[in-house]
Amino acid sequence: MKQYSQMNKDELNALKNELDGAFVKYKEAGRSLNMTRGVPSDDQLALCNDMLTCLNANDYKAANGADCRNYGGLDGLPEVKKIFADLLELTADEVIVGGNSSLALMFDNVSVNVSHGVRDGKPWATQGKIKFLCPSPGYDRHFTICNYFHIDMIPIAMGEDGPDMDEIEKMVAADPLIKGIWCVPKYSNPTGIVYSDETIRRFAKLKPAASDFRIYWDNAYAIHDLGETKKILNIIRLCEEAGNPNMVYVFSSFSKVSFAGASMTCMASSKSNCEYIKQRLTAQTIGPDKLNHLRHARFFKDAASVIAHMEKHAQILRPKFKLVSDMLNSKLGGLGIGAWTEPKGGYFVSFDSLDGLAKRIVALCAGAGVALTPAGATYPNGQDPKDSNIRIAPTFPPLAELEAAMEIFCSAVKLASVEKYLA
Amino acid sequence: MKQYSQMNKDELNALKNELDGAFVKYKEAGRSLNMTRGVPSDDQLALCNDMLTCLNANDYKAANGADCRNYGGLDGLPEVKKIFADLLELTADEVIVGGNSSLALMFDNVSVNVSHGVRDGKPWATQGKIKFLCPSPGYDRHFTICNYFHIDMIPIAMGEDGPDMDEIEKMVAADPLIKGIWCVPKYSNPTGIVYSDETIRRFAKLKPAASDFRIYWDNAYAIHDLGETKKILNIIRLCEEAGNPNMVYVFSSFSKVSFAGASMTCMASSKSNCEYIKQRLTAQTIGPDKLNHLRHARFFKDAASVIAHMEKHAQILRPKFKLVSDMLNSKLGGLGIGAWTEPKGGYFVSFDSLDGLAKRIVALCAGAGVALTPAGATYPNGQDPKDSNIRIAPTFPPLAELEAAMEIFCSAVKLASVEKYLA
Repeated sequence: MKQYSQMNKDELNALKNELDGAFVKYKEAGRSLNMTRGVPSDDQLALCNDMLTCLNANDYKAANGADCRNYGGLDGLPEVKKIFADLLELTADEVIVGGNSSLALMFDNVSVNVSHGVRDGKPWATQGKIKFLCPSPGYDRHFTICNYFHIDMIPIAMGEDGPDMDEIEKMVAADPLIKGIWCVPKYSNPTGIVYSDETIRRFAKLKPAASDFRIYWDNAYAIHDLGETKKILNIIRLCEEAGNPNMVYVFSSFSKVSFAGASMTCMASSKSNCEYIKQRLTAQTIGPDKLNHLRHARFFKDAASVIAHMEKHAQILRPKFKLVSDMLNSKLGGLGIGAWTEPKGGYFVSFDSLDGLAKRIVALCAGAGVALTPAGATYPNGQDPKDSNIRIAPTFPPLAELEAAMEIFCSAVKLASVEKYLA
Repeated sequence: MKQYSQMNKDELNALKNELDGAFVKYKEAGRSLNMTRGVPSDDQLALCNDMLTCLNANDYKAANGADCRNYGGLDGLPEVKKIFADLLELTADEVIVGGNSSLALMFDNVSVNVSHGVRDGKPWATQGKIKFLCPSPGYDRHFTICNYFHIDMIPIAMGEDGPDMDEIEKMVAADPLIKGIWCVPKYSNPTGIVYSDETIRRFAKLKPAASDFRIYWDNAYAIHDLGETKKILNIIRLCEEAGNPNMVYVFSSFSKVSFAGASMTCMASSKSNCEYIKQRLTAQTIGPDKLNHLRHARFFKDAASVIAHMEKHAQILRPKFKLVSDMLNSKLGGLGIGAWTEPKGGYFVSFDSLDGLAKRIVALCAGAGVALTPAGATYPNGQDPKDSNIRIAPTFPPLAELEAAMEIFCSAVKLASVEKYLA
C-alpha cells in the first residue's frame, strides 16, 4: 500500500478520477444513511420491550408502599436509587434519580450554579466572565450548555489516558474564574478512551483557585463495555479522601441501557451536595415519574442483572464496531491519510483526517447520502482548530447500511486527501 | 343558632368545656388524617389503570412513525399536542408538551427569564430587584418559585371574579420592575373562584410599563368541573387581539386527569414565544418521555374523550365536596365564626376564620390527628396578614375519613373562636 504522500501527480490524478467515478455512482444510488448521533438500534431497544408491559393494575406500588401513580418523592424510588448506587459503588444518599434526560440534570445543575452558586458559594453569574475547561474532542451537548450560559470554553488536549492533566492542574490552580470541567471518563465521547487510574487520582487531588470549582463527570458509558468489563476508579471516594468531598458531580443514565427516550437518569455527589440539590428540587418539580422508575426496578431487579443485560447490547454492537474497524483498516490502513480509535466500549469511533479536511469529508459524505455529525461539533463553539476530527456513530444503522456508509466514508477520506495533495 | 359574638361569658365557657372534652376524645382516638394537599384519591387513579398496559411490543410508534422508545422530539408527540391544543382552543404550534410536572415548566420558564430574559428582552437578573404580583390567597408553590429566585412578591386581593384588576392595572402601568403575575384563572387555588370574562379581558389589555412583563396563567383546573362544564375566555387569543401577543404563558397539566405523578404537562404561548422556548429546550434536554405521551394518546384518544373522562373524576369528587359543604353549613352556619367557598370545580375549599385564628385552628387539628396545609401557606412568604385563611383539600381521603376530619376541623374552628371571645 503506497502512502498518498509518496504518490506523484499522475498517480493522484488517476486515483481522483476513480474516486470521482465512485461518487457519481454513490449519488445515483440515492442512499440516505444516518451516522450523526449515538442512538441505539431497533434491536437494542427491543431488548427491553417487556418494560412496556411489566406494570399493571395490580402492580404499581413501590416496596415502601408508595403508590407510584400518585404525587410524592423527589429523589427517586428507593429501588432504583439502590441500583444506581450499586452500579456506581456509592450509597443511596449520594444518589438522586431523575427523569429521562441526564442532559437536563447537567443543564439544571449548571443553571443553578450560575444563578445561585454551589452550596455555600456565590452565584457564578456575579463573579465575572467564568470559564469551563473542555477536554476536546468532546461531547457537543456539553459545549452547548456552556454556550447557553455564556461560559467561556477552554479546549484541553485529549490523550490516551484522558485529558492533559499537567495543563488542567496548572490552569485551575491559577485562575479562580475557571469553575468547571466536562469529563466523560469512560469510553469518552468521541475518542472512546478510558481515563487511567493516574488521571482520575490527579482529578481528585486538584487544588483549584476557585473553591466553587466543580468537575462535571458524565459517566454516560459507565457499563457500556463491548467486551471485558472495565472499571474506573470511584471519583467521589477519591475526592473525599483528597479533602475535596464536594468537588465532583457524577451523571449517569439508562438511556443506552433501557429506552433511549424513556429511561431514567442519575446524578451523584456528596451527601451534602445532594441535600443542597434536593432543596432546589422542592421548588422545581413534583418529582420524577415514579411509574417509570418502577418499570426499571421490575425489569432490571438489581445491578447484577443490569450488567448481564449490557452483554446483550454488546452482542449487537460488537459486529458494528468490528465492521467499522475492519473497513477503516482495510480501506485506509497504510495510506497515511487518517488515524482512528478502536474503542472497547461506548458509542463512537473517532477519526482524524489530514489537517483541514474534516469539513470536506463530511460534505462529500452528505452529497453521497451519508449524514455524519457536523465537522467541528466535537470542539467548543464548533471550532476544530485542525479541522480534522470526525465522530463516527455506528450503533444505529443495520450492518448492511453501516457497511454502505463506511464505504462512502472511506472513499470520501481518500478523495479529500487526494484533492489536498493535488492542490 | 346564636352567633358567638352574641354569647355571654357563661355560655362561652360552657361551650369551651364541651369542646375541650371533644378534643380529649379526638386525641384518644389517635387518628391520622391528611388534608394537606390536592392529591387525587385511589379511586381516581384507578380510572386510568389501563394506561399501565396500553402499550406493548407491537405498539410503541407514533402516527408519524417515530419510535417512541428512542431519542428524538422536543415539544411533544403530535398526538398529544393536538389533544392539548383542542382542549385549550389553540393550534399545535402554540403548544409545547413536556414531562410529568407543570411546576417544572413554570420553574424553568422563570429561571430562564431571570438568567436570559424573555424573547428580545434583557435578563430580569440584570434589571434590579424585580417583583411579581401574587393574587392571594394563592398557590404556595408559585410563591416558592419567586422565593427561590429572590423575586419580591406583592399580594393582590382576590374577589369573586378574580384578583383586584384596578390595583393590577395601576401597578403594572407604574412599575417597570413588576415582571410577572401568578394566576389560576379557573377554580383558583385555593378559593375555587373562576375569573370572569371581564377580568380576563382586562388582563389581556394590560399596559405594563415593562415590555417584558408576563402573565403566568396556570390553568391547572381547565377541565376539572364538578358539575356543568365551565369555559373561560381564551387569554392567548385575547392578548393577541389586544396587541400583547407574547404577554402570557399558559400552563396546563394532566396530573389530575391521568396519574398525578406520571402524567404529561403543557405550556402554551404565542408561536413566537414557543419557538424561543424550543431553542432553550435544545440545549436543556433530549425531550420529554414519548412513551408516556403515547400512553396518553392511546388511552384518551382525543379531547372529547378527555372531557368525558373528567366526568368520572367528578362523580368521585362531588360527594366529597358536598360533604365538606354540608358539614360546614350544618356545624358552622349562622355562628358568625367563618366564611367558606363552595367551588364548582378544582381541588380546594377555602375557609376564612375570624382574624388571627388560622394558625390556632391548624394547630388544634394537628393535635387531634388532622393534618392541614400550614396556615399562611396560601400567602407570599407564608404570611397571611389576617391569619385567617385555611385551605381544605378534600379529594384524597375516603368519605368516612373526610367526615371524621371535617368534624374535628369544625370543632377546632369553634374552639379557637370561643377562646378568642373569652380572651
